Amino acid sequence: MEDLHHTCQWGTGKRWGKAESETGMTRLALSDFDKQARDWFVKTTEGLGCKVTIDKMGSIFAVRPGLKNDRPPTFAGSHLDTQPTGGRYDGILGVHAGIEMLKVLNDNWIETEYPVGVVNWTNEEGARFPMSMSSSGVWAGSIPLSTAHNLREVHPGTATMAEELSRIGYLGSVPASHEATPMAAHFELHIEQGPLLEMANKKVGVVTGVQAYKWLTINVKGRDTHTGTTDLKSRADALLVASKMILHSHRLATANNALVSTGILNLKPGSTNTVPGDVSFSLDIRAPADETVARLLGLVEQDFSKIAAGENLSGFVNITEDFDSPATTFHASCIDAVTRAAHRVLGPEGKSLTMEMTSGAGHDSVYASKRCPTSMIFVPCREGMSHNPEEFCKEEDCAIGAEVLLHAVLRFDRM
Amino acid sequence: MEDLHHTCQWGTGKRWGKAESETGMTRLALSDFDKQARDWFVKTTEGLGCKVTIDKMGSIFAVRPGLKNDRPPTFAGSHLDTQPTGGRYDGILGVHAGIEMLKVLNDNWIETEYPVGVVNWTNEEGARFPMSMSSSGVWAGSIPLSTAHNLREVHPGTATMAEELSRIGYLGSVPASHEATPMAAHFELHIEQGPLLEMANKKVGVVTGVQAYKWLTINVKGRDTHTGTTDLKSRADALLVASKMILHSHRLATANNALVSTGILNLKPGSTNTVPGDVSFSLDIRAPADETVARLLGLVEQDFSKIAAGENLSGFVNITEDFDSPATTFHASCIDAVTRAAHRVLGPEGKSLTMEMTSGAGHDSVYASKRCPTSMIFVPCREGMSHNPEEFCKEEDCAIGAEVLLHAVLRFDRM
Ligand SMILES: NC(=O)NCCC(=O)O
Ligand SMILES: NC(=O)NCCC(=O)O
Repeated sequence: MEDLHHTCQWGTGKRWGKAESETGMTRLALSDFDKQARDWFVKTTEGLGCKVTIDKMGSIFAVRPGLKNDRPPTFAGSHLDTQPTGGRYDGILGVHAGIEMLKVLNDNWIETEYPVGVVNWTNEEGARFPMSMSSSGVWAGSIPLSTAHNLREVHPGTATMAEELSRIGYLGSVPASHEATPMAAHFELHIEQGPLLEMANKKVGVVTGVQAYKWLTINVKGRDTHTGTTDLKSRADALLVASKMILHSHRLATANNALVSTGILNLKPGSTNTVPGDVSFSLDIRAPADETVARLLGLVEQDFSKIAAGENLSGFVNITEDFDSPATTFHASCIDAVTRAAHRVLGPEGKSLTMEMTSGAGHDSVYASKRCPTSMIFVPCREGMSHNPEEFCKEEDCAIGAEVLLHAVLRFDRM
Repeated sequence: MEDLHHTCQWGTGKRWGKAESETGMTRLALSDFDKQARDWFVKTTEGLGCKVTIDKMGSIFAVRPGLKNDRPPTFAGSHLDTQPTGGRYDGILGVHAGIEMLKVLNDNWIETEYPVGVVNWTNEEGARFPMSMSSSGVWAGSIPLSTAHNLREVHPGTATMAEELSRIGYLGSVPASHEATPMAAHFELHIEQGPLLEMANKKVGVVTGVQAYKWLTINVKGRDTHTGTTDLKSRADALLVASKMILHSHRLATANNALVSTGILNLKPGSTNTVPGDVSFSLDIRAPADETVARLLGLVEQDFSKIAAGENLSGFVNITEDFDSPATTFHASCIDAVTRAAHRVLGPEGKSLTMEMTSGAGHDSVYASKRCPTSMIFVPCREGMSHNPEEFCKEEDCAIGAEVLLHAVLRFDRM
């Protein structure tokens, strides 16, 4: 916890409580603050005896040798970047628990069968560069390196990921791929980010998979006109149309047991007395099953065209799919390692304090799972709040999660 | 027309046609481009023998002496600033027609009874600093100087009007007031900005008044949450609420025969996978009668609270009134001068080519009319399009408007 709060000096966000650590975080991927946290990560893991490599996506891999080193390391990992108004636990907890694992192994002179490692993945949030899990996606071969490198930041929209990687000195030389940096397994500790564990009074979530999601950009073209001289019927009001679409997307989501959200909306020209002729907004669609997300996408495409046509804007709606993460199932061997580790850490009551669950949020484990056995450990967070400065996880729960991570990795190593 | 297009080199906007002059304009108030246009205005009017003064709001008054000079000048005026995606005629035409008037008087050795002047008002559009007609408002004593000076630009929102006035060298020394710069009358030539003249096949609109309007800022506070882990019912989605409010405001406007428009919308934090917890948007409400605008405001206040309450956001909607321009009636003597001037310029068909109308848009004449006899001359613009780069007024119609302006001023001067 000391280390975690120490590193939160880089990107400290909004204060919500009195204690020194009671603030959120604003540490966007590849920002100066991210660089400072990365520098700390490299120095710390090297100090713990690890060999550190950095790949072309800026992901940092710290490896502690095993008794034998002819097989790939078992990794613990997550990310150090945050949302613009994020908290101190989303991603950060998982990386710090990995480092804590290294310390415990060192302090207790434990030698693992094979190497173990800790990874800090780049731009997991997708908040600055609009593809979540972009570096693990490249590592897995699912996202082309050039696509990720050419991603342009959302605000103000000028720098690319490649430019920012080299600006902060983290455009590594190792190819970003599972071939250059193979993994025996990938374990990730994370706060749940939802309310289910807390509501069920459980301490550990054994994560069996992740729901599907797609990110779209909707562009609506209308016509700039004067607000005082253009009657309502003669307008092509791109914002009015976008508002109808946003409301309609919620109706579709409710009817299909899915989630939709608009987190970004930009309009032009942005003047009180000009009806906006150009609006772009994001649409994040999620559901447990790929088919549900696909059905929602079809309905959105069909109905948004109709909504636009009703406003004399026909043909002026454009929908781009920016990102697609199909439903993910983690591996039985890793799920089992997490379950057993949790039962051991939690003692006699272990079974009643643990539950299996799928993740509503995406994680680097999604892409890791395409190339190696993977699963995740969830711990409860206050009121399920995340992507919010008030995100909070009790010290006790952080500790339980870190212990479960350690034991899951050790168990897998011995397997 | 030569002068007008010449000065449109400063802030040339989007191209829509092949001819050199077929572009829009982007000349926000107190920008570097505005400074260049102002410098040209000062040099040109001084070259035509005028005495030029600049007031504390940066309004520029150019006065040509009369036979007698013991009474205030009769002014022609408008503004040189534009919308972010504006055209070449809104405001610009009126200022250039004023300069053309000075040239015609000079070329024909005409001496007026009393002085005549041309005024370029600052920030008429309200597009950069969010109060329209802000400098004529100060001149009239309706807007306190400090309020206008402290107005902060809409994008990116850092500079104040006072800062920008002094940066470009147009923070004049003359008090911004009708007492320091009195006017015998104020005439303004402007494109209609709506479709009525074109539809009715008229050449000149005799403007008898201006409809009422208010500008509001609505702030909706929700809660930042994760898009993938927060079910729809547990959200406080400020953008969903804002979308409902925007749609509802249109229903209210339709039911009350009024206009409403949202031209600006900003949200925070602006990340694809965070439900936005903070949205601000503008609401421009207009109607011919003050009571209608007041009724709309009351309904907006009442219904927006209900909409917010329905989303568990009660108490988290804040409505600020930023600007209020009550309905305006121009002066019979000026309306008469314009009518007679139009009939004279248009010849035998004059009566059938002229119509009386009220303005849907605000103009500096609104505030001028509070302190001196005032009226306006409208000329048709293509498809009523304005606040759009494709805004267009035929050369012939610009010329008719300028001639009517000249004759209205001369007529008033003799009166
Ligand atoms: N864990 C997390 O917040 N990941 C961001 C990717 C997503 O949008 O789910
Ligand atoms: N004429 C004009 O476009 N004025 C801007 C003020 C308004 O919004 O009506």
